[in-house]
Amino acid sequence: MKTNTHCIPCFLRQANETLDRLEIDESRKRRILEKVSHKIFEIPFEKSPPHVAREVYKLIAALTGIKDPYKNEKAHANKLVLKLYPELKKRVQQAKDPFFEAVRLAAIGNIIDLGAKSTFNLDEELRNDLNTEFTIFDFELLRKKLETAKNILYIGDNTGEIVFDKILIEEIKKPVAFAVRGAPIINDATLEDALACGLDEVAEVISSGSDGPAAILDSCSEEFLKLYHKADLIISKGQGNFEELSEEDKPIFFIFKVKCQAVAKQLNCDVGDMMLSHKSHRKKSEA
Amino acid sequence: MKTNTHCIPCFLRQANETLDRLEIDESRKRRILEKVSHKIFEIPFEKSPPHVAREVYKLIAALTGIKDPYKNEKAHANKLVLKLYPELKKRVQQAKDPFFEAVRLAAIGNIIDLGAKSTFNLDEELRNDLNTEFTIFDFELLRKKLETAKNILYIGDNTGEIVFDKILIEEIKKPVAFAVRGAPIINDATLEDALACGLDEVAEVISSGSDGPAAILDSCSEEFLKLYHKADLIISKGQGNFEELSEEDKPIFFIFKVKCQAVAKQLNCDVGDMMLSHKSHRKKSEA
Repeated sequence: MKTNTHCIPCFLRQANETLDRLEIDESRKRRILEKVSHKIFEIPFEKSPPHVAREVYKLIAALTGIKDPYKNEKAHANKLVLKLYPELKKRVQQAKDPFFEAVRLAAIGNIIDLGAKSTFNLDEELRNDLNTEFTIFDFELLRKKLETAKNILYIGDNTGEIVFDKILIEEIKKPVAFAVRGAPIINDATLEDALACGLDEVAEVISSGSDGPAAILDSCSEEFLKLYHKADLIISKGQGNFEELSEEDKPIFFIFKVKCQAVAKQLNCDVGDMMLSHKSHRKKSEA
Repeated sequence: MKTNTHCIPCFLRQANETLDRLEIDESRKRRILEKVSHKIFEIPFEKSPPHVAREVYKLIAALTGIKDPYKNEKAHANKLVLKLYPELKKRVQQAKDPFFEAVRLAAIGNIIDLGAKSTFNLDEELRNDLNTEFTIFDFELLRKKLETAKNILYIGDNTGEIVFDKILIEEIKKPVAFAVRGAPIINDATLEDALACGLDEVAEVISSGSDGPAAILDSCSEEFLKLYHKADLIISKGQGNFEELSEEDKPIFFIFKVKCQAVAKQLNCDVGDMMLSHKSHRKKSEA
């Protein structure tokens, strides 16, 4: 997906919220935002939104010297969902269709995204979304493809959310490679988080190598790209990975909550909708 | 109120939404937004948000040649609320305290703001807000001050909303000067709108002279400023006028719905809250 002009205010909102966390005074914030704004317009909009966002966050890190402004919030999110793990696990085990329930929870877990929104209310989300439907729901296709899949790649997204991913991977009952970001960005999960949440107990945890808020292919490691191209089934979590990979000709199932109007417009849905979409919705009929 | 860094993405969002209405293609939109972005950073942030917004909208008008992109939506809003007038009027007349009811409706009418949000749902708002309370409610002070006031200035805000203002002015039962914007900006009401909604039947309608989305004092006409300085009671509608006038040492009652985090933070309240505040809340205790 290309960046569009509606992404510009969103990048600047994200920059603002990151600078708020660093407690930078108003006049310095203003100078940094001016540089961020210049940077945004230097990048061709043929690039994906996560590509531009990566440049924004890198510039903020360079200008402030702080490389991981979401460090505490990430640790908190991991702890929060780890505490819920027994309850969530029980919910899956007692469900009529445990795999279905695990997929639903994995989508709900995608609410933990501090790039799209400054805060989240997981309790409320868990209460609400258990009664809502997926807008695009290629569930039976996912189940079918999983039966024969031999090389499964699961591309994670946020801290905390990866505990939901762990539960889904346990229900897949097959070897899975679980990829996380190569460096801290927003509240996205890195190797450290995956280990803290025990993803290594259920999957082969690898780094995508990308330091952007998605598996930005031209910044991914060879190790990741080898698995990516070999995979016969890819589960991609989160809107960032969708934005980056939606035009790829790969066997990808995107699981995410829609977080902005730009993506909602592309998918002809509403902000807040839950998605389980094979490739992009545009290509759904070809699936 | 000074502009703060959180206003920057909001200005660019507004610019985007205005350009959407003009059906300008993506690459031209991008070039215009880059210019808008440069312009924003040229203006000292000591200026109020409406001051910066004025420059943004003026630049868009200059670059596109279209001076009134909200023309049709403004006419629609006027018609929409004029149709509701008999029902709203009846509601006021049948209320236990008609003046109280008219004040409430005037605040609710402030939802019709296409700068803060691209769309509004008046029906829903009328249903919901009749059951909600004002967060700051200097109502008895307003009633008391109105008893002795001799020179009342009412500064209007948006099209459609001015029909609610008409109903409130009818309940004031005293001569009122009603000020509108000096030129089209967003969906704000101008002389043409005031006449279309019959404000001239209940008040002396004047132009503030300002071509910004507020009565920006350094751009107001002498006629307006004379009334402004002479007034012993000023009713100021909308968040834009609040942002511009909140630090003025004048007998102003601000009636508006809070539409952004920057103002919510200043007033220690939530977005969506209804306000009837004498001067700014900060100065409330001195009132």
